[in-house]
Amino acid sequence: MMEEILKKVQDGQLSVAEAKDQLAAYENLGFAKVDHNRKVRQGFPEIIFGEGKTAAQIISIMDAIKSRGDDVLATRVAKEKAEEILKYQPDFIYNETANILYWKKDMQPNMGDTGYIAIVCAGTSDLRVAEEAAVTAEFLGSDVRRFYDVGVAGIHRLLDNVEAIRDATVSVVVAGMEGALPSVVGGLVSRPVIAVPTSIGYGANFQGLSALLAMLNSCASGVSVVNIDNGFGGAYNAVMIDRMARSAREED
Amino acid sequence: MMEEILKKVQDGQLSVAEAKDQLAAYENLGFAKVDHNRKVRQGFPEIIFGEGKTAAQIISIMDAIKSRGDDVLATRVAKEKAEEILKYQPDFIYNETANILYWKKDMQPNMGDTGYIAIVCAGTSDLRVAEEAAVTAEFLGSDVRRFYDVGVAGIHRLLDNVEAIRDATVSVVVAGMEGALPSVVGGLVSRPVIAVPTSIGYGANFQGLSALLAMLNSCASGVSVVNIDNGFGGAYNAVMIDRMARSAREED
Amino acid sequence: MMEEILKKVQDGQLSVAEAKDQLAAYENLGFAKVDHNRKVRQGFPEIIFGEGKTAAQIISIMDAIKSRGDDVLATRVAKEKAEEILKYQPDFIYNETANILYWKKDMQPNMGDTGYIAIVCAGTSDLRVAEEAAVTAEFLGSDVRRFYDVGVAGIHRLLDNVEAIRDATVSVVVAGMEGALPSVVGGLVSRPVIAVPTSIGYGANFQGLSALLAMLNSCASGVSVVNIDNGFGGAYNAVMIDRMARSAREED
Amino acid sequence: MMEEILKKVQDGQLSVAEAKDQLAAYENLGFAKVDHNRKVRQGFPEIIFGEGKTAAQIISIMDAIKSRGDDVLATRVAKEKAEEILKYQPDFIYNETANILYWKKDMQPNMGDTGYIAIVCAGTSDLRVAEEAAVTAEFLGSDVRRFYDVGVAGIHRLLDNVEAIRDATVSVVVAGMEGALPSVVGGLVSRPVIAVPTSIGYGANFQGLSALLAMLNSCASGVSVVNIDNGFGGAYNAVMIDRMARSAREED
Amino acid sequence: MMEEILKKVQDGQLSVAEAKDQLAAYENLGFAKVDHNRKVRQGFPEIIFGEGKTAAQIISIMDAIKSRGDDVLATRVAKEKAEEILKYQPDFIYNETANILYWKKDMQPNMGDTGYIAIVCAGTSDLRVAEEAAVTAEFLGSDVRRFYDVGVAGIHRLLDNVEAIRDATVSVVVAGMEGALPSVVGGLVSRPVIAVPTSIGYGANFQGLSALLAMLNSCASGVSVVNIDNGFGGAYNAVMIDRMARSAREED
Amino acid sequence: MMEEILKKVQDGQLSVAEAKDQLAAYENLGFAKVDHNRKVRQGFPEIIFGEGKTAAQIISIMDAIKSRGDDVLATRVAKEKAEEILKYQPDFIYNETANILYWKKDMQPNMGDTGYIAIVCAGTSDLRVAEEAAVTAEFLGSDVRRFYDVGVAGIHRLLDNVEAIRDATVSVVVAGMEGALPSVVGGLVSRPVIAVPTSIGYGANFQGLSALLAMLNSCASGVSVVNIDNGFGGAYNAVMIDRMARSAREED
Amino acid sequence: MMEEILKKVQDGQLSVAEAKDQLAAYENLGFAKVDHNRKVRQGFPEIIFGEGKTAAQIISIMDAIKSRGDDVLATRVAKEKAEEILKYQPDFIYNETANILYWKKDMQPNMGDTGYIAIVCAGTSDLRVAEEAAVTAEFLGSDVRRFYDVGVAGIHRLLDNVEAIRDATVSVVVAGMEGALPSVVGGLVSRPVIAVPTSIGYGANFQGLSALLAMLNSCASGVSVVNIDNGFGGAYNAVMIDRMARSAREED
Amino acid sequence: MMEEILKKVQDGQLSVAEAKDQLAAYENLGFAKVDHNRKVRQGFPEIIFGEGKTAAQIISIMDAIKSRGDDVLATRVAKEKAEEILKYQPDFIYNETANILYWKKDMQPNMGDTGYIAIVCAGTSDLRVAEEAAVTAEFLGSDVRRFYDVGVAGIHRLLDNVEAIRDATVSVVVAGMEGALPSVVGGLVSRPVIAVPTSIGYGANFQGLSALLAMLNSCASGVSVVNIDNGFGGAYNAVMIDRMARSAREED
Repeated sequence: MMEEILKKVQDGQLSVAEAKDQLAAYENLGFAKVDHNRKVRQGFPEIIFGEGKTAAQIISIMDAIKSRGDDVLATRVAKEKAEEILKYQPDFIYNETANILYWKKDMQPNMGDTGYIAIVCAGTSDLRVAEEAAVTAEFLGSDVRRFYDVGVAGIHRLLDNVEAIRDATVSVVVAGMEGALPSVVGGLVSRPVIAVPTSIGYGANFQGLSALLAMLNSCASGVSVVNIDNGFGGAYNAVMIDRMARSAREED
Repeated sequence: MMEEILKKVQDGQLSVAEAKDQLAAYENLGFAKVDHNRKVRQGFPEIIFGEGKTAAQIISIMDAIKSRGDDVLATRVAKEKAEEILKYQPDFIYNETANILYWKKDMQPNMGDTGYIAIVCAGTSDLRVAEEAAVTAEFLGSDVRRFYDVGVAGIHRLLDNVEAIRDATVSVVVAGMEGALPSVVGGLVSRPVIAVPTSIGYGANFQGLSALLAMLNSCASGVSVVNIDNGFGGAYNAVMIDRMARSAREED
Repeated sequence: MMEEILKKVQDGQLSVAEAKDQLAAYENLGFAKVDHNRKVRQGFPEIIFGEGKTAAQIISIMDAIKSRGDDVLATRVAKEKAEEILKYQPDFIYNETANILYWKKDMQPNMGDTGYIAIVCAGTSDLRVAEEAAVTAEFLGSDVRRFYDVGVAGIHRLLDNVEAIRDATVSVVVAGMEGALPSVVGGLVSRPVIAVPTSIGYGANFQGLSALLAMLNSCASGVSVVNIDNGFGGAYNAVMIDRMARSAREED
Repeated sequence: MMEEILKKVQDGQLSVAEAKDQLAAYENLGFAKVDHNRKVRQGFPEIIFGEGKTAAQIISIMDAIKSRGDDVLATRVAKEKAEEILKYQPDFIYNETANILYWKKDMQPNMGDTGYIAIVCAGTSDLRVAEEAAVTAEFLGSDVRRFYDVGVAGIHRLLDNVEAIRDATVSVVVAGMEGALPSVVGGLVSRPVIAVPTSIGYGANFQGLSALLAMLNSCASGVSVVNIDNGFGGAYNAVMIDRMARSAREED
Repeated sequence: MMEEILKKVQDGQLSVAEAKDQLAAYENLGFAKVDHNRKVRQGFPEIIFGEGKTAAQIISIMDAIKSRGDDVLATRVAKEKAEEILKYQPDFIYNETANILYWKKDMQPNMGDTGYIAIVCAGTSDLRVAEEAAVTAEFLGSDVRRFYDVGVAGIHRLLDNVEAIRDATVSVVVAGMEGALPSVVGGLVSRPVIAVPTSIGYGANFQGLSALLAMLNSCASGVSVVNIDNGFGGAYNAVMIDRMARSAREED
Repeated sequence: MMEEILKKVQDGQLSVAEAKDQLAAYENLGFAKVDHNRKVRQGFPEIIFGEGKTAAQIISIMDAIKSRGDDVLATRVAKEKAEEILKYQPDFIYNETANILYWKKDMQPNMGDTGYIAIVCAGTSDLRVAEEAAVTAEFLGSDVRRFYDVGVAGIHRLLDNVEAIRDATVSVVVAGMEGALPSVVGGLVSRPVIAVPTSIGYGANFQGLSALLAMLNSCASGVSVVNIDNGFGGAYNAVMIDRMARSAREED
Repeated sequence: MMEEILKKVQDGQLSVAEAKDQLAAYENLGFAKVDHNRKVRQGFPEIIFGEGKTAAQIISIMDAIKSRGDDVLATRVAKEKAEEILKYQPDFIYNETANILYWKKDMQPNMGDTGYIAIVCAGTSDLRVAEEAAVTAEFLGSDVRRFYDVGVAGIHRLLDNVEAIRDATVSVVVAGMEGALPSVVGGLVSRPVIAVPTSIGYGANFQGLSALLAMLNSCASGVSVVNIDNGFGGAYNAVMIDRMARSAREED
Repeated sequence: MMEEILKKVQDGQLSVAEAKDQLAAYENLGFAKVDHNRKVRQGFPEIIFGEGKTAAQIISIMDAIKSRGDDVLATRVAKEKAEEILKYQPDFIYNETANILYWKKDMQPNMGDTGYIAIVCAGTSDLRVAEEAAVTAEFLGSDVRRFYDVGVAGIHRLLDNVEAIRDATVSVVVAGMEGALPSVVGGLVSRPVIAVPTSIGYGANFQGLSALLAMLNSCASGVSVVNIDNGFGGAYNAVMIDRMARSAREED
């Protein structure tokens, strides 16, 4: 492409000033196209981290994005803040469990026959993080199946669901306390497991440190870990993998 | 008992000096009888922590105890040190895996029909700690059944043994890395689980911290924890419980 | 049992569909019977962790359980929340010190001649955790004797009670700050000690870390540890042991 | 499948004993097939963690596997140990940088036109971990491209390679010290990044803690993390994803 | 100077009492002149740490300083507190983003042709700390250029500004989460980088520990670090350097 | 004193030059006299921290001090190093348990009727630290009584010695593992307790952290703490107090 | 004493029942006399830790003690709570800076010519802790001199006061942030220094950890440390020493 | 510059191929010139981190650099390794205290009248790190003055040197244990202080953590911090500042 520009200068088709502009643009494009490419190719909508932002700030950012016709999702929006926002933007959708607020042009599931993400969750206390993962993944265009309350202290509940979890293209496994669930799931499935430690617990859980360390030390091989309570990050990684996996499965 | 002594003084059966001695003895007995009682009632032999002691020191302590006719066990005796000791005391028995050296008048198993301790172990790397627990428990007079290499990443290996573990009076569960095994066992059995974290692992296991924190945060209710790599401590707690449990089971 | 089913199929007593159902049931029973067995054999009622649940949620869960005729206990229910619940369910009982709310068909003590759990507590600040342990243990059917305010800085207060603590089948020892009490008790008794560190203290106690580490490093042999502030867990372990111990003592 | 067995019993094709065996097999298969399936479907060979094992132990395990005709790889085998093993098994291959010893029937690369894993590495000190990842991934059947010494303090070295890294199906990014590289790579690519913190550094790196925490807190969205120095784990996750991705890309 | 005083005593020009006073003064001057010198030579105005002080306390301190004709700046003054203060002292200036309140006789920028400090900031969440640094530096008499929202996950945003950052006499680089930005900037510039970790993030960022450790372990050589969230300290160090640098540049 | 010098100048008794010298000396004396005074008034000999110094370095320092006729003590001198030194300086005395090497003109105990320091020690493993304290205290001129192996797990051993410990002017209490001993002693005595945590233990003792935190959180009021394994520091503090206390007791 | 009782029994002067009572009393006295002795000999009044107690609880405890004619002091009583208490007990005295509430029969200073405790304090933010120490020490009967705002960043302020600090019998040195002050003071004085770390600071001070570790690692020899923010504990240790020191100084 | 290239293409002075090369070079130059510029403008020679490299590796790297005529310095080269290297390269210079090996064309000091770096060091144990800083700074072309053994426990030693430290353009302050020295120096001087914590100490110094935290929390304003034991980093930062400062001072 640089060669073309230079040839046009040589041929007089471009003035020096024009060529300089185009080359500069090309240069910027070297990095700016990252964002553009990502949006075009992946269709990943914009994501806002809502914690520490006022309702007014969230409204103005989401409006700006929506007015461009783009989808938009805000994580960690507490109920009170969401209710304030919904007064002004009643067409936004709020998921109270997940603390997620979003707007999407059309929310159609993929056909479901090509693969799904398993969201596996140890206890009911971890639900906020699990739902943050689930809603994020659905918003980003993946199908999701929820396997909740299947913690290791009642291993049969997990085993009852093991076939369905095995069939998922990727699992997001959410657990607090001793964080043992990803190891057990990782030993039962043959696809990637994204482990999300939660801060659920008390005392020597030290705000999620116990679950985090346990997951990093998993004796199962296919487990990788994201930050404590980072349901969004778990889902984002899973959707990246699920997209590849679904294509692969379609051709099987 | 004090009253009796005083009465004898009043009756002239005891001189003041004799009474003083007996009362002093009684006083000391108030605390000294702890050790005595323990040995008499429980038959717990003496235990030596071998780490940081020379072969000569271990020999002299063990000889002294043995010469009283008492059983004696030394934990954390490395192979080289043990070999040096065995040259002088060939009738001592050394368990290389457990790093335990002991001498016992007669090592007869209990009849086995009245209960046993399950030593459950996640990986082959945890064997030293598991065997320290197993040999200690046997030395202290309990029957032991070993369930090794049943880590959570291959949960079916554990489930294949679940009935036998359930039948134990108490389980000592040894695990390093993510330390998930006690939670899974705790959810499957209805008897106490003593969890022993090990320092096995690397990186973010931080010398056993990951397993320790996981076990303290176990979502299963009947799990209590001892120090990292403390196989002896796990066994000691278990034997205390097993003794009570066996008596109970005998009468069932 | 599997054999019987198969024989009935062979004999035509069971259709293939019926056999499939029964075998599936049997399979599930492999794990589902855990819970069932536990309830039937042990009579352990349901336990709810009240922290982070609304009054409405607690009411609906407890009502559901109570309507089945089962006993139910909720830990960590703050006073305000409890008062709200008691308006709707005045027959629930609330223990304010322990922050425990429960309902039990009939709360009859065991005969008391067969053993009890000692709840030993260092300071008055640790009372909430100690009472959580005591009320839980009583609710689960054990007799309890309380030995409060016997911290190590006034060792004579502990020694005055040492005989009664020695006679307990198991001790739950609750302490914050330097967490020294379980070591001292462990050296005085010959039965298991369940140590419960509390977050009581300030500065370098780091929310209970000082007591937790001290207890894990106890120089007394028969001490195992549960999570910080986990009075319930301490009691649960103790009740498991006490049940076995009482049976054993009955036959003495 | 259970239905078929039962029908054969009904039809007299199977005796009760034969059916019991098959059903038991089926039952075990419920969990045992995990391992079997994994090997058959994924072709994942056996992996041995060599640290803490003697040369003799490694030889006997590897021989056993090799004699079944299976491929086998041992990580963390120090040079001296490897040389000892190679005397007995000169057909094993040892990669000194990666500290990996392996045997593989035939080591043919995939055609290379369908995708590859990028192994990205910050500094020359991280080479051991990066090569552990690279050799593992190749052994497990993926193509690998190495991008070494592209740390963030000389960002142009990374940018010079950005297109090739973008084209990878997944990146394994290895870094010690401040662990910044995965964030920068994660911002430049649109495929998953597996971050591997290393213990390289000194002082306040606390054996890899600095890199680990940095990676868990990555501001780039598609980054997940494995344990410190766990090059093998990074590769294992990447191969799982690469297999799906390659299938997907083949059909593009 | 001591010699002069002594001579005057010898000459009778000073009484013993007077000489004693002067020598004592001289002695005190040995240390007291530090503060005086600093103010005279550096023109560094007084700084107040506003956190934990009441509005009334801040008013009285600032008034006292202002009445001497000296400039004064208070950091960490929350909005409510500032509004209360401004009622009484409407001529104070409050910067809401920086949480800084100040009064300055005349706020004239240096001519700008002799150098400036670059304040570089990773994300919008770090703005408070970055602005604390920027406003402090301006108040202390340096020119400042702000480069905000140039975090490493979108490296092109940073690279677009690299020439202007290179031309700064010193950079203050503010970042939370993985704290990678100072390493990247340190690799691109040849002047000192003062790194300011922020507590922005959640989970395993542990209130800024992740960014702090990352910055201390920077693989770029010219990076030094101040306390978490210490925008003021970063600016203070930078102004010290900028003053020297500007003098140097003036003569180039 | 300054006044006298000035008067002599006025009187012509001192030249200006002489006075200047004396005042300068006085000035330096302002700080230098600290060391001098300390030696003169307290008779504290020089102390050398032997760890990390070669035998040759220790010899040359000790010789220099000894040649001035001053006493000298070196802590943390391992046995091999000491033997090397003793070849050259056979009149030095080496205490192998304490790892202390010293030379003292005359080592006479104080009369013993005026007070002593109690060195109280939990276990035999803590002996090195306890003896470092004991030998240091004796070397610095205090009488010492040793109370060893009186750990809290056998509380009667401590109680048997309680009167003698109470009579000490100050106690140095040395303990590793759970570090409970200072709290118990602090509750029994009415004089200061200097607590010395040791690194003795394993696993969750984290090189002495458990004992250190326990001692800092002591529920007994008169306990202060020095660094882990710092027997010397414990003794130094105790000797300071003992000197005052003995004077006080003499007059009782 | 025991002998006397026994003789009286022999002589018929005491009945068995009376002797039993007296011996029991004597026995209890073995530990109970601790408290009694302490009060009688030391005149240490009762101390209440006010944090976490209600106003009503504090009133009832203080009233009970006061009604016995004993002095009483409560630490960590917040202003609001104190005001509530003072409505009922207007003769209590509240020190707002120290958060201390007390009642004392007669608060007369000792004559001041026999010694005093120096309370040395780094910054104005540490005042609460310093005053807790100062008021406690005065309440316990020692004279106190305050040396505030003499932090190490303005070392001349400390040096101006060095003689007066040297003359103290013992120093309580209070500092947050880098906790350097005790080391500097310890190098200037020849009497014991009790170091009190405070939680004052932010970021990497980690709630007082930085000051605590610095003080434990002091390079000055005569420094011992109490818990973070424990001004009371610092004073208590100092008063114990001051009492001995004053007696000693009286006789000089 | 780009404009010039384009004009030459337009004028036919450059072929398209030549222009493309030059623009590519220019592009690369966008980042590559960093290194080049740095070397040309700053004269910073190459630095090698010697730890973990073999003697052979160090020889080959240093030879390569030296053969280009460039200066070269290797830090952290232990004595044995250095001696091995010096056999092959006797013209290299080894500083044993600093563990630094270097080669420099001509090592001429700057004239000394234009400024110098003060290397300030707390104790003799910190010498290795201090000398690493001093030798590095000299190698990079700055004058250095050493102020060693001026730790805060003998504050007069520091104060005796305060004027000379104040006159330095920048101070590198090296301290282990409590890390107090940078705060004291920072309060005495008005130029930047680079603080280097060392791992010197034991027990609760936790390999330098105590000094590191203390320095990050310095109450003096002009202090910034580098990694533990990073004498090289401290010097590098100081040289950057010293160069600017010397230029500035030359014109005063």
